[in-house]
Amino acid sequence: MAVGPESFPDMPAIAGIRLGSARAGLRKGPGDDLTIIEVAPGSEIAAVFTGNAFCAAPVTVARNHLNSNSRLPRWLVINAGNANAGTGAQGLEDALDTCRAVGRLTGGAPEQVLPFSTGVIGEPLPVAKLTAAIPDALQSLSGDNWARAARAIMTTDTRPKGAVAHCVLDDRTITLAGIAKGAGMIAPNMGTMLAYVATDAAIEAHTLQRLLGEAVKVSFNAITVDGDTSTNDACVLLATGQADNRRLDPTHPDLPAFREALTNVCKQLAEAIVRDGEGATRLIRVEVEEAASADEARQVAFTVAESPLVKTAFFAGDPNWGRILAAVGRSGCRKLEIARVQIWLDEVKIVENGGRAMGYTEEAGQGVMSRDEITIRIALGRGRECTEVLTCDLSYDYVRINAEYRT
Amino acid sequence: MAVGPESFPDMPAIAGIRLGSARAGLRKGPGDDLTIIEVAPGSEIAAVFTGNAFCAAPVTVARNHLNSNSRLPRWLVINAGNANAGTGAQGLEDALDTCRAVGRLTGGAPEQVLPFSTGVIGEPLPVAKLTAAIPDALQSLSGDNWARAARAIMTTDTRPKGAVAHCVLDDRTITLAGIAKGAGMIAPNMGTMLAYVATDAAIEAHTLQRLLGEAVKVSFNAITVDGDTSTNDACVLLATGQADNRRLDPTHPDLPAFREALTNVCKQLAEAIVRDGEGATRLIRVEVEEAASADEARQVAFTVAESPLVKTAFFAGDPNWGRILAAVGRSGCRKLEIARVQIWLDEVKIVENGGRAMGYTEEAGQGVMSRDEITIRIALGRGRECTEVLTCDLSYDYVRINAEYRT
Repeated sequence: MAVGPESFPDMPAIAGIRLGSARAGLRKGPGDDLTIIEVAPGSEIAAVFTGNAFCAAPVTVARNHLNSNSRLPRWLVINAGNANAGTGAQGLEDALDTCRAVGRLTGGAPEQVLPFSTGVIGEPLPVAKLTAAIPDALQSLSGDNWARAARAIMTTDTRPKGAVAHCVLDDRTITLAGIAKGAGMIAPNMGTMLAYVATDAAIEAHTLQRLLGEAVKVSFNAITVDGDTSTNDACVLLATGQADNRRLDPTHPDLPAFREALTNVCKQLAEAIVRDGEGATRLIRVEVEEAASADEARQVAFTVAESPLVKTAFFAGDPNWGRILAAVGRSGCRKLEIARVQIWLDEVKIVENGGRAMGYTEEAGQGVMSRDEITIRIALGRGRECTEVLTCDLSYDYVRINAEYRT
Repeated sequence: MAVGPESFPDMPAIAGIRLGSARAGLRKGPGDDLTIIEVAPGSEIAAVFTGNAFCAAPVTVARNHLNSNSRLPRWLVINAGNANAGTGAQGLEDALDTCRAVGRLTGGAPEQVLPFSTGVIGEPLPVAKLTAAIPDALQSLSGDNWARAARAIMTTDTRPKGAVAHCVLDDRTITLAGIAKGAGMIAPNMGTMLAYVATDAAIEAHTLQRLLGEAVKVSFNAITVDGDTSTNDACVLLATGQADNRRLDPTHPDLPAFREALTNVCKQLAEAIVRDGEGATRLIRVEVEEAASADEARQVAFTVAESPLVKTAFFAGDPNWGRILAAVGRSGCRKLEIARVQIWLDEVKIVENGGRAMGYTEEAGQGVMSRDEITIRIALGRGRECTEVLTCDLSYDYVRINAEYRT
């Protein structure tokens, strides 16, 4: 199940980026489960990783390699089927072995390789199987392999996720292309979120990292399926510079255009992850406005978006607005004046003056709830800050997927 | 479904307390849904209410009546089937009407009546039906009606919940008796938690309130079914003083004995609520120890206890320890050293040194997971604080109950 029709975009090659996939046999079922992304020399790379203290071995290794003072990374190696998390010292050794194997075959240094894993936690990484498939993955490297790579990184995802955007820098058309996987966002088991975005723009390193952080905040960090943050989450932004624009830095007049395009790609991928959330039957947009602070807006939005009672009501298509009101009430806003709070389901006002809105009818509520995509808009009447969070409903299938996964 | 065999204790009468129930017809199905608890003159009363900003009308009215400087409350009126929450000004008027009706029939002042409601949010309280049943409820007042009252306050509960304890104050045997309802702890819809505990001890008012606050902290505030805090939660402690002990105050040498008995009753009721959690098939005890602070211990315990992924794994009986580890990792402990964390499922050690424990076997984990009641023990290796939180698993039935409730 997923919300909305499947649509994978035509993904253009990005000059300086090649992708190759192969089957290592780490994930059950048929198909590729190993992907290598090769980045041309001179490319800049930015990355954001999970905040989970129990981060996976590949996250630790990728962070170390990014922070080392040696040469810039040239290869990303991504396996599905095994997270290499909760694997202690052996896990670190296995992640390093993966990097060494790529280095040997490409002539690069192990520090130029960044490893990523998604899949089961706590099982040793079958590193021999993985490295045995690396030659095949390298052999298949091509600029046109986005769709194949998007499939190879899937776990419980039911469909591949890709996004494309363009902008103009110094009169040159710049392309951004990205793929992601999610499903049990952000589930520590099979649901790790991974996203890779590449562009041919030339961008100064610090600017690249800052732009990625800003885009992630309003995209991947504004979605939730079950509130569980994975041990393996990562989002990587590659900039090859082959479009030959003047290197993007904070003084560049076209910076806003690039920021918008990057945010656009990240938001498309983030939305695709929620649409394909485990067991999802509806896409729910939670908009909070008139908050006293940005933190408060996020707190209210996430409390509503993560409430099991709100989510089961949406699964049932039940306009049970009392659950939304109660979630707002427990979200921790200091001295919330409930008489000032207003709540809408799409165009239908459901709450005002501390209770059901005048003129609200069960029929009107039911009409909205029969839709696949619904916006909950909450005006707090306390200030000017606002935010938006995407989530999905909580269905029998969420329980089935997560209860049966290992059996 | 509920965890463990049903067992309702023999509940003794408490001198100075009478209970009466009747059918008002607010709750679907047969049986009583209105309860009045009468308290003898001179009794002390303490109460703790929901922290939800959208608190229900009866909560506002009960708080006001408790804080008014007029005479002490004499009657509690509790209805099931309608929460009188999200009902605005009319809801307050309806709650006051309920108090006025009891006052008229008993000769008391409306301010001596405390109203409590549990049930659907956002529907007007059918106050005429409710008040029409008050005479019947008053007529049935008796000290021996605990079991009947425990049934009358139920909503999605599958069984009544009661607890009894004794202690000795000034060589007199003191009795404590309590009833509670819960189920979708602490669900804003049908799952409101209500608890009423009575004792014949004489207790000074401030001491009573303080003792209740302490007991609630380690009992009702240490359980979670779905993390949703209701608009209607309330816990009331009545002390009639008819045991004729020297009034309990902070200098009384038997204070610890009473505190222990009260905590015992509250913990029994809290555990009964989790055992009867919506869709529960297993009782999970989350013990956190070696935390740097009490807040940190609670934060880790609740993050694990509320993780949908941990809860679905327990429903499946799957020793998926990676999900517990990941929940600990994302719980927000600053600078957690994962190599110092140890985790056990009952007697089986599952995590040490940042990964799977040496000697752990899937068979041993599976053996524990086949049990109905399981303890997750987490040692953080950071300090000396500890805590315990009770929760249940997340099953298909949780989704069914909360998706289908209004249909």
